[in-house]
Amino acid sequence: MSEQVQDPWLLTPGPLTTTMETKEAMLHDWGSRDASFIEMNARVRDRLVKIADGEGTHVCVPLQGSGTFAVEAALGTLIPPDGKALILINGAYGKRMATILDYAGRTYATNETPEDTPVDLDALTVSLENDAAITHVLVVHCETTSGILNPIAEVAEITKRYGRSLIIDAMSSFGAVSVSAREIFYDAILASSNKCLEGIPGMGFAIIRQCVLEGCKGNAHALTLDLYNQWVTMEANKQWRFTPPTHVIAAFDCAISQYLAEGGVAARNKRYANNCRIIIDGLRALGFETVLPDELQAPIIVTFKMPADPTFDFDAFYDQLKEAGYVIYPGKLTVAPSFRIGGIGNLSAAEMNGALDAIKDILKKMGVTTGVPAAA
Amino acid sequence: MSEQVQDPWLLTPGPLTTTMETKEAMLHDWGSRDASFIEMNARVRDRLVKIADGEGTHVCVPLQGSGTFAVEAALGTLIPPDGKALILINGAYGKRMATILDYAGRTYATNETPEDTPVDLDALTVSLENDAAITHVLVVHCETTSGILNPIAEVAEITKRYGRSLIIDAMSSFGAVSVSAREIFYDAILASSNKCLEGIPGMGFAIIRQCVLEGCKGNAHALTLDLYNQWVTMEANKQWRFTPPTHVIAAFDCAISQYLAEGGVAARNKRYANNCRIIIDGLRALGFETVLPDELQAPIIVTFKMPADPTFDFDAFYDQLKEAGYVIYPGKLTVAPSFRIGGIGNLSAAEMNGALDAIKDILKKMGVTTGVPAAA
Repeated sequence: MSEQVQDPWLLTPGPLTTTMETKEAMLHDWGSRDASFIEMNARVRDRLVKIADGEGTHVCVPLQGSGTFAVEAALGTLIPPDGKALILINGAYGKRMATILDYAGRTYATNETPEDTPVDLDALTVSLENDAAITHVLVVHCETTSGILNPIAEVAEITKRYGRSLIIDAMSSFGAVSVSAREIFYDAILASSNKCLEGIPGMGFAIIRQCVLEGCKGNAHALTLDLYNQWVTMEANKQWRFTPPTHVIAAFDCAISQYLAEGGVAARNKRYANNCRIIIDGLRALGFETVLPDELQAPIIVTFKMPADPTFDFDAFYDQLKEAGYVIYPGKLTVAPSFRIGGIGNLSAAEMNGALDAIKDILKKMGVTTGVPAAA
Repeated sequence: MSEQVQDPWLLTPGPLTTTMETKEAMLHDWGSRDASFIEMNARVRDRLVKIADGEGTHVCVPLQGSGTFAVEAALGTLIPPDGKALILINGAYGKRMATILDYAGRTYATNETPEDTPVDLDALTVSLENDAAITHVLVVHCETTSGILNPIAEVAEITKRYGRSLIIDAMSSFGAVSVSAREIFYDAILASSNKCLEGIPGMGFAIIRQCVLEGCKGNAHALTLDLYNQWVTMEANKQWRFTPPTHVIAAFDCAISQYLAEGGVAARNKRYANNCRIIIDGLRALGFETVLPDELQAPIIVTFKMPADPTFDFDAFYDQLKEAGYVIYPGKLTVAPSFRIGGIGNLSAAEMNGALDAIKDILKKMGVTTGVPAAA
């Protein structure tokens, strides 16, 4: 592949930059019933359970589609039609869970905090204390809307104390921030192939407490989203119910091997934290401000406030940065104009420093003298 | 890629053998909001509408997941909660549509014929004549359970005469058997990336009559399966609602270019028909019998009855054939023991003759003197 021009580095929440080794794993075709594919699929599932520290308690149920498909499937499968969810919301992905439950016809309450504020533990306690109908608590681990890391251990502790079931959307944190099932009590955690495990997009997965999943027959609101059915079928014949995304699974298997070789969650967390550190320190030195204080910042993606300097034009900035080889992401905050720079994927200090140099160049050419945002 | 060993040829209903050019299209990473990806996605959608002859009347709505996800999404989106479907069933995929409607809570009737018999046109007329509540007719174009081609033009003509809406599952025929929207009146036709257009698995798509889709807001039974929402969002910002399977789309785009270069549906039909002809003639010469008479056989996949010779062991036959480089498929018929050999994917006469030679060798080594099946 030496003739290939380097694609722009993706400093986004995903799809991400993957290694060439991961992409080259897709240069084959597999029959969906064949031994080599079945072995690969089983290996992926086993290793995902191990990464979650769920051996002996949890099982891995993969699903075709994007991460949101896995979230919708898990909510529909695990929350029975007569259940009631409490959704802790501080961003777009928490809100999306509410939309899913509207479609699925499940009852729910919400506890909402602003996008730059962690979910409210006291409010959670009060809700569980006062509403005996709540059966499930839903929370997003890292809300990529802002990049905030929610206090997952505390949420799990409170939910367990009140005997409710916890479902964690760990889409953008799984593999980079530890969510050990031995330390944090949850019934399900959801993620996808194309985030911190650095595969390509096309499948999500749920790591589910087996004894809970066993009781979920008949809950799901859609055939293709029925994780009970998906699990039972896969356990029985090792195959997917419907055509599996064979190449996506092959790339994921290869990406997981690289993840383990790198040193698992500790090593990946360290690399990503360093990536974010470089971009935060570098942009702060130029006057930019992060939306979050450092203690709330997940080592995944960083939201910066838009500079007040009228010569700063985000669209031109974005385009020139892409031209220089670095793709960033628009903001998703509802409260303030912002943009986001991610530090996940096959990125290291070299690429983050490269992005920083390119940003400095572009700002200089634009005539932007400071990244200081407008006063709030 | 010259160092690569050839993977076994997949003589299956999919995933299929794809060209190396198609697989190599995946050796990049794309941001899901980036111009190059958006352009590729728009090109795929436009060309799929053109292949269906739906320009000006129909739109393409792609969906993450396998073909069944697209089927479930289309049924849930197009059939309103107070609608009623009539499902024409002669195999597993017709039955699967009934299961989908059970999940989605839609009312339906079924007209079922045996797996080796086309759907019943007289029964369809009687049902539509007598049941004014039926709003939608659902039919599978090529039922890969047996390999039968259903009389789609006649089904469409009758359905149109009675003013009902037709939804066609053309998963395994789209691109290889003409279903021109100018000649056959349908509101939606469903297929996927990894069948006769020879992409890799990971997305399905629906070609839907635009004026019908415009009235489908609020019908869907699941957020991720809401094709109305998927379409409106994609029209508005050219992006997918949820993370797109970027690499799958890139491979599909490349596969469609090769499809058009080969000569479109006429050329592909001819190649596949010749592939099936070689395997049918060759196995018949060895005494094997097809389940279907030639006039009902789609040029997609052929079902053979299991030989009566007690020395024939299907599992050993399958394994040795795979060892020789050819993967076939077990039968799915409920009425009789059978196996299937497909002629779709990146296969030509050379591979079909190669498979035939390997089959002859294996039967000889096994001591099987004839493929004649047990008398019915």
